[in-house]
Amino acid sequence: MKLTVTQLTDQLLASYARVGGINHLDGVNLPSKNGVTLIAGDLLRLLCPGFFDEHVIHSSELKVETATLMDSVAGRLEDEIYKALEYRPPEGLAKKDFRGAAHGLTLEFLGKLPHVRELLRTDADAAFNGDPAALSREEVIVAYPFMEAVAVQRMAHQLYLKHVPLIPRIMAEWAHSRSGMDLHPGARIGSHFFVDHCTGTVVGETCLIGNHVKMYQGVGLVAKSLSAGQQLKGQKRHPTIEDHVTIYAGATVMGGDTVIGEGSTIGASVFLTQSVPPFSLVVNEECRVKVMNKKDREKQPGDFSI
Amino acid sequence: MKLTVTQLTDQLLASYARVGGINHLDGVNLPSKNGVTLIAGDLLRLLCPGFFDEHVIHSSELKVETATLMDSVAGRLEDEIYKALEYRPPEGLAKKDFRGAAHGLTLEFLGKLPHVRELLRTDADAAFNGDPAALSREEVIVAYPFMEAVAVQRMAHQLYLKHVPLIPRIMAEWAHSRSGMDLHPGARIGSHFFVDHCTGTVVGETCLIGNHVKMYQGVGLVAKSLSAGQQLKGQKRHPTIEDHVTIYAGATVMGGDTVIGEGSTIGASVFLTQSVPPFSLVVNEECRVKVMNKKDREKQPGDFSI
Amino acid sequence: MKLTVTQLTDQLLASYARVGGINHLDGVNLPSKNGVTLIAGDLLRLLCPGFFDEHVIHSSELKVETATLMDSVAGRLEDEIYKALEYRPPEGLAKKDFRGAAHGLTLEFLGKLPHVRELLRTDADAAFNGDPAALSREEVIVAYPFMEAVAVQRMAHQLYLKHVPLIPRIMAEWAHSRSGMDLHPGARIGSHFFVDHCTGTVVGETCLIGNHVKMYQGVGLVAKSLSAGQQLKGQKRHPTIEDHVTIYAGATVMGGDTVIGEGSTIGASVFLTQSVPPFSLVVNEECRVKVMNKKDREKQPGDFSI
Repeated sequence: MKLTVTQLTDQLLASYARVGGINHLDGVNLPSKNGVTLIAGDLLRLLCPGFFDEHVIHSSELKVETATLMDSVAGRLEDEIYKALEYRPPEGLAKKDFRGAAHGLTLEFLGKLPHVRELLRTDADAAFNGDPAALSREEVIVAYPFMEAVAVQRMAHQLYLKHVPLIPRIMAEWAHSRSGMDLHPGARIGSHFFVDHCTGTVVGETCLIGNHVKMYQGVGLVAKSLSAGQQLKGQKRHPTIEDHVTIYAGATVMGGDTVIGEGSTIGASVFLTQSVPPFSLVVNEECRVKVMNKKDREKQPGDFSI
Repeated sequence: MKLTVTQLTDQLLASYARVGGINHLDGVNLPSKNGVTLIAGDLLRLLCPGFFDEHVIHSSELKVETATLMDSVAGRLEDEIYKALEYRPPEGLAKKDFRGAAHGLTLEFLGKLPHVRELLRTDADAAFNGDPAALSREEVIVAYPFMEAVAVQRMAHQLYLKHVPLIPRIMAEWAHSRSGMDLHPGARIGSHFFVDHCTGTVVGETCLIGNHVKMYQGVGLVAKSLSAGQQLKGQKRHPTIEDHVTIYAGATVMGGDTVIGEGSTIGASVFLTQSVPPFSLVVNEECRVKVMNKKDREKQPGDFSI
Repeated sequence: MKLTVTQLTDQLLASYARVGGINHLDGVNLPSKNGVTLIAGDLLRLLCPGFFDEHVIHSSELKVETATLMDSVAGRLEDEIYKALEYRPPEGLAKKDFRGAAHGLTLEFLGKLPHVRELLRTDADAAFNGDPAALSREEVIVAYPFMEAVAVQRMAHQLYLKHVPLIPRIMAEWAHSRSGMDLHPGARIGSHFFVDHCTGTVVGETCLIGNHVKMYQGVGLVAKSLSAGQQLKGQKRHPTIEDHVTIYAGATVMGGDTVIGEGSTIGASVFLTQSVPPFSLVVNEECRVKVMNKKDREKQPGDFSI
């Protein structure tokens, strides 16, 4: 016998009662994923005026436009931070102080935007100078997924430093979804950073990245064994990349003690779990591939036949 | 001489007449990609009430909210399934029975939601326990692309098992686009599944994955030679991963006969085309990389110069 | 002392004055990212009528529907191309001629749609024939991220050939964001192209790809050392892939002089920087992985313990 929609609803309600942990009921209001996403989009407009707007911004109107947008962002961000604090209050913060704390954190964060802009300017330079396919800085800012991803990471990092729960990660995952690159808000990233193509690149929470670091798609700056899971929380699990390092596509650098010395180059597809001194070049051993000609190939069992 | 828009339209219409196969005219109405996507979003709200909603859900209103949403989803899903059946009717189903069949399939599917919730609860646990960067289960559910991807796969898998055409794949590709991870709706995935970072990971149609399997970004559970293409349809082409296996970033496991025995660990970037017994550890041979110091490096030809 | 929102706005305005290069003020109106994205979506509807529409398209209405959509796309695309030309005028083009040039480029581009459709038809065939998981051509067109990505690349390539600034790259990055695959608009791609799973695959600007080329996720057709950055602009930096080549997941082929001869197969995870003759098979050397059993494994230091 088929159940009706009403019966199915009752079944699902019974499941809500029986299986907890993935419901969020009667609790505090969690920050809105959609709300945080819209705020992140508006913050990009504040960072790079005229690039993410649908109309030309004239200097004469810049003050009014900026003040209006700033005001709107400030109010909405404060609300989301308030919800985040309600959900996981910092130690020693009384409920009556949440609103004030959310207000203060919002203002402190907005006060960091000029600092973020200074870094972002260096990233735009690095992207343009580093990619022969880039036609102009404008193209880099409008079209490159990297610019959005790094701008969002640099802002989320500021919220992460203030121990704001949930919101940095929601922001970062929005950028991850759009760029294919997972830059954790915890990573400390120096100036003149550039990742070409982005897709598949992962930078872990406790990475330290110096200035003028250039990477490509599919690079992992990751932890060694993670079988200890939550017990590793707070430890430095991800590598340190010093200034002027280049890491080519698909290379993996692992471990919290691993330091890639300044000026080093890590070749494509290299898998590295140890530190290397400054100015090293690390490449895969040669002779890793076997090239068979047509005749040899015909002797192979079926799998790779033409 | 430049053609006018009218002339260009005529050219395009002539092309529709000449080049078939990528037109869909006069035929049945295909399921709407956009419609299926919205349904998938609402199904996520039914699975994890309060997490994907913009407002707090109170227990007192839960019954009404759930009933309303369930009713709306049921109607819309039935319509999309109806279109899918019209497009490719199951053997022996007469046209007059499509509506009834769509209704039945919809109810059967909705009846599986409590089962999907039970699995999803174990996935949330696995994600939280397995990732030292996770601050809370709430963060995992709200922010991790993995949770969306696995929830959608588990639902699409239920439709796949019922041989509903097109819709499971449209759902899965929506999640793929958002998470960067391609989990085919056909894959059978046990409880306590977790993929960290997701981006670049591919799980093929005929994979069997046990319980407590943990994977990372860029992992491929894929087929061996696919040169036979459509002739391989229906065969088991993808590997079997037994319980409590961990597969680190960038590893590739290939082939329908390949079985990774329970409790095994596959190291990062390993390329594996053979079975391994339970509790194996598979890593790449050492000495694969060559580290050159500054002096050696200066002797290299131009490519990797500093 | 906490700053007010007004004071923070003034700080940000001061930053706009101090840090240039990531502002776009008083200048010309850049093409709208959102506008270009909507146009790209409508162009997909023109290429494959009935597949990306929410309703059935009947032959009797096809002419009217196509003419209306074509007209709308022509007007909007002309506006975006006009903005792109304003931003970076082709040599020798006077300001008074921008509108006419934008009009002409738009018509020329729309005149290429039948040609793009012919190629796209061969891609749909290649995708269906090449993937045993594909149930039908319709599924391929509706659900596969590849079809969207290749359709957008083939259109963006036409604009690239006409030296339209910004727009081809904005289109391509939209597809990149949705598919996880970065196909540069500059790449010349033959007929019957297919990339399964897409995620992580990168095809560089100066690639030449023949007919009947099949690739998988995580493949990179990339440049060798890029340390020279902008100095390399215009050079052929990316490989040539001849007809009937298959490149399996995670393989990297590097360098502008590298030619993969026709009929060759490049195995998964291969890293290749040299040319190979026609009909070659290139695989990684065997014995790259070390399999330890449970006993050996217990002797290992902590990292990979069970």
